[in-house]
Amino acid sequence: MGKNMLIGQSGGPTAAINASLAGAVREAMGNSAIGEIYGMVYGLEGVMNRQIIDLRAQLTTQEHFRRLIGTPCMALGSCRLKIKDNNREEVFNGIMKILRDLDVGYFFYNGGNDSMDTVNQLSEYLIEHGEDIKCVGIPKTIDNDLMCTDHTPGFGSAARYVSTTMKEIICDAYSYNIPTVVIVEIMGRNAGWLTASSVLARSGPGTAPHLIYLPEAPFDPDDFINKALRHQKSNPNVIVAVSEGIKYADGEYVAAAKPGMVDAFGHQYRDSVGIQLENLVRERMGCKTRRIELSVLQRSASHLSAAIDLREAYNVGSIAVKYALEGKTAVMVAIKRISDSPYLVKYEPVPAKDVANHERTVPAKWITGGGSNVSQQMIDYLTPLVQPDLTGTNHEELPFLILDRTASVL
Amino acid sequence: MGKNMLIGQSGGPTAAINASLAGAVREAMGNSAIGEIYGMVYGLEGVMNRQIIDLRAQLTTQEHFRRLIGTPCMALGSCRLKIKDNNREEVFNGIMKILRDLDVGYFFYNGGNDSMDTVNQLSEYLIEHGEDIKCVGIPKTIDNDLMCTDHTPGFGSAARYVSTTMKEIICDAYSYNIPTVVIVEIMGRNAGWLTASSVLARSGPGTAPHLIYLPEAPFDPDDFINKALRHQKSNPNVIVAVSEGIKYADGEYVAAAKPGMVDAFGHQYRDSVGIQLENLVRERMGCKTRRIELSVLQRSASHLSAAIDLREAYNVGSIAVKYALEGKTAVMVAIKRISDSPYLVKYEPVPAKDVANHERTVPAKWITGGGSNVSQQMIDYLTPLVQPDLTGTNHEELPFLILDRTASVL
Repeated sequence: MGKNMLIGQSGGPTAAINASLAGAVREAMGNSAIGEIYGMVYGLEGVMNRQIIDLRAQLTTQEHFRRLIGTPCMALGSCRLKIKDNNREEVFNGIMKILRDLDVGYFFYNGGNDSMDTVNQLSEYLIEHGEDIKCVGIPKTIDNDLMCTDHTPGFGSAARYVSTTMKEIICDAYSYNIPTVVIVEIMGRNAGWLTASSVLARSGPGTAPHLIYLPEAPFDPDDFINKALRHQKSNPNVIVAVSEGIKYADGEYVAAAKPGMVDAFGHQYRDSVGIQLENLVRERMGCKTRRIELSVLQRSASHLSAAIDLREAYNVGSIAVKYALEGKTAVMVAIKRISDSPYLVKYEPVPAKDVANHERTVPAKWITGGGSNVSQQMIDYLTPLVQPDLTGTNHEELPFLILDRTASVL
Repeated sequence: MGKNMLIGQSGGPTAAINASLAGAVREAMGNSAIGEIYGMVYGLEGVMNRQIIDLRAQLTTQEHFRRLIGTPCMALGSCRLKIKDNNREEVFNGIMKILRDLDVGYFFYNGGNDSMDTVNQLSEYLIEHGEDIKCVGIPKTIDNDLMCTDHTPGFGSAARYVSTTMKEIICDAYSYNIPTVVIVEIMGRNAGWLTASSVLARSGPGTAPHLIYLPEAPFDPDDFINKALRHQKSNPNVIVAVSEGIKYADGEYVAAAKPGMVDAFGHQYRDSVGIQLENLVRERMGCKTRRIELSVLQRSASHLSAAIDLREAYNVGSIAVKYALEGKTAVMVAIKRISDSPYLVKYEPVPAKDVANHERTVPAKWITGGGSNVSQQMIDYLTPLVQPDLTGTNHEELPFLILDRTASVL
């Protein structure tokens, strides 16, 4: 029997993260070089609290794996532990002791750029202390903001949620002939990939969403109001997709800061950007507004998982185990796109330190319309990622029917 | 060629209302007693503005009907016109003239209790003025609050949305080991049917949603906090489903009133009940809270339509046309349930005046747990209505997999 493995999940939920867990555990089960398969309960925090479960004991049937893949959010539980200079030695020393106690030879951490920082730092720490424990990162984030990878597992499902629900929000607004500005607030503090995916809803009535604002381009309130007024001339319902993290030209967040409230990573809590824009529209346009916050469903709606996303999430989990068994450490499994159509990818190891603590934002040339639209390249990039299945034949692919209401017989 | 028909949609959107339009138009197309098939653009408001479209011209293929059935919200557009004593004569006289101009013999209005009031009053008015125009109401509302019918088309899909997304919200909360109260705000001003449907999410982790509050039972803040604290002892994440219209024992809405703001029906605008409960939890429990407003998606999410709902919505549209051709007027098509399992219904005409301006609320005996839970009868009532298809074999029917996090190996 070989060394044991330990796997954990970290950061914010996605609809696909348990598929990565399933992929890693299945791969490990098929390889005699791996002994016990342990899961961290609540990530590294759980390790420090000695909360470790036996995954061989809990995942015993094909049905368990099928259900795990279809279950959204962290089955093992998550944490948002940030390794800092002042707790690094204590945290890593505690973890190393437990890894020794459990005879762990393979360590897997599934998360975003903070998690890749953990993978990188922990692997260095273990090498410094003479421990031969391979540490491999498995990518995950709905924000799609990891460096060195074409996209991240979890993003495709979240993008499918955003584009599908945006189409329905457009139909809802289109039910009434009342001048309205609908503001749809989408997650993404510094990267606008998920907000950009609202562009795929443009198969609905008109060209809604009419305005799409990403954090990468400065937000100009006057320009926003002028454009909304212009759109309202031809369509009473103006639909706006806006990223929670948009900023003014001076770099200040549009969402009003709440002084003194910060999370574990030092990110500041803020009032919603949607409330700010709603107030702006009310004051400057005087029309009805409706703010819709997609909230946690954009990250947890497994009923709208994209099939390619689940498959890739499974694959990166499985490949992480292969990398570790090949002796790789301090790497993350990255996805490299070979072509859009047919959609083809390959997987490759990249140094975790190149991913750690960086954010991959939307390229400036993919942002058009003076900062209120996205380009055809963005549409081409997004389209394969949100497909419900590989043949694209699901019933909801049928476009909505929009009656011509202007063709009055009277 | 017989008389022409005119059909309109009114009130708030649902995911199933266009299926009723499809059913009515298809039925009419198959019957030579009906000549032209006209659609009101934006309901009665559109009639008064002479916005009438030719549906024979716009719905010409099988594909059009398939797409129409799959399109959420009002394809014809809606209005919230309220017929009052002081505008009744003017509105009905204007409508009667247009009905004469268009040689209409059959008038269909698809909506809630306000729409059934319109059907009833208009049919009386037309009879008084010697017009032989049959007026038939087609039921629709996500609130499920119409009298004389087991349930209303649109409700099943909305209930499926609530129960499906509630399961995912529970998984999302379950990702973290942080004491939190999640408050999910669900539509329903006076009737709690839709909020009650969150009970169907109890196949997820634990027994969440732990507390379910309907407008039919008085809300006691002290009891709420005591129960939330009790649940938090065994589970850090307490999940609460709450109807927007819950009231204190003295009959006051929990949502704070905003004086002077009323809609066209005289309903008062209010601050969100979720904000009130969030503040209550923060003050009394001191823990993290997250408020999730299901917003317009609970009524417009056609991607989660319930198959029985779409079928029944189609049927009530089709049967309304049959009733009119049989000479019935001032009636609504009602659904009568014959059995839960197997699920069987029949359709019957009921007087529109018996439906008009009343609300069917949840029976007191179906509300349990001192006003914070619903009974097994409610579960039995709801279960057939939310099925994704008649065989119940959709992939999402597979229950989520919940790992046992307490079984630590250390």
